[in-house]
Amino acid sequence: MVDHNERRKQICDVLLDIVSEAGIAAATIREVADRSGWSTGVIGHYFKNRQDLLLGGLRRAAEILGEHNTRVINTLEGIAALEQILEGSIPLDKRRLALCRIFFFFYAEGMTVADLRQELESYLVGWRKSATRAIRQAQAHGDLPADLEPKRVAADLVGLADGLSIHSLLDPRVMSQLREQSPIRYWIRRLGTEVPSGDKGESAPPTRYASA
Amino acid sequence: MVDHNERRKQICDVLLDIVSEAGIAAATIREVADRSGWSTGVIGHYFKNRQDLLLGGLRRAAEILGEHNTRVINTLEGIAALEQILEGSIPLDKRRLALCRIFFFFYAEGMTVADLRQELESYLVGWRKSATRAIRQAQAHGDLPADLEPKRVAADLVGLADGLSIHSLLDPRVMSQLREQSPIRYWIRRLGTEVPSGDKGESAPPTRYASA
Repeated sequence: MVDHNERRKQICDVLLDIVSEAGIAAATIREVADRSGWSTGVIGHYFKNRQDLLLGGLRRAAEILGEHNTRVINTLEGIAALEQILEGSIPLDKRRLALCRIFFFFYAEGMTVADLRQELESYLVGWRKSATRAIRQAQAHGDLPADLEPKRVAADLVGLADGLSIHSLLDPRVMSQLREQSPIRYWIRRLGTEVPSGDKGESAPPTRYASA
Repeated sequence: MVDHNERRKQICDVLLDIVSEAGIAAATIREVADRSGWSTGVIGHYFKNRQDLLLGGLRRAAEILGEHNTRVINTLEGIAALEQILEGSIPLDKRRLALCRIFFFFYAEGMTVADLRQELESYLVGWRKSATRAIRQAQAHGDLPADLEPKRVAADLVGLADGLSIHSLLDPRVMSQLREQSPIRYWIRRLGTEVPSGDKGESAPPTRYASA
């Protein structure tokens, strides 16, 4: 008997391989059929059209990231976990390139399609939750200052990771910087320090994310 | 005599108004005609189809941001300029919402269309250059540490601003955080501090963006 969930997952994994090697434009039912050996008819049993197949790829990507984060949380703690959670989708290898491409493809669509936006929101919420948890652990261990507000810092770092990932797919210079050094580590290290109370700059009053 | 450059600009401004109020999906030649009073024929003289019109909107958005950055650099200095350059496209008002929506719509497409990717790259390069210049000024004034590498820090902050903007359009919680406090200021303030040389965390060796 065919395990339909397993086959669906396998089809999505073939799709993600194509996305990482040749991009979203190349990711068609025909191409998945050619690569996998399943007929377009079999694939059509699981995904009614190309859009549906791509959406399957997005969900598989979210599942892979979720599994990654669970594994990280079960094996690492605090800052080490935080780094891995944030770097889990920076496109520095084929697997993560596929995840980025499929996510960013749907980000644009999520801005106009309500159901999709909600789905993407739930993935972002999950990502931030994992990061928040790691920040709290780091605080408990004394590796990050106790006065940081974990949720806000998590939201910013998740934004940083995704913003740089998007830019790296548009601009090779950003990609080479990401390959050279981890900006994630750089900014997490910045959190480990006290901000001086005197403000020398001509900027507006300091905004702090300290909890009340 | 009609000033064609001026009219083209006016059409794009009407388009951006529609994008800010009703989103990309509502931004059609028909809708621009209804709003502006110009016929679809007149608009068709400037933009051959909807995609071309949207591309016009992207270019107008880039021009608006470029003008904003020039104005900032001519009137502010150092950290104050840096903040304005980075916050210029965070979608906290109608104008900036339109810029974000049109940019992010094309980011997805830029990942598959080479010409468009290059165009978007040039906008990102320009944005980073303005930020880099402001960071150098702040260093010259002693408002940021001399050992920061301006280009790298600029790339990260531009990534942070764009990443959070994208997330705020997908997730209302990120939007309310952006409305409450500026993450840009928070992280710029983090740069003003020395990172301690002893590393208490279990993280990998510190990566620094210090110039050689």
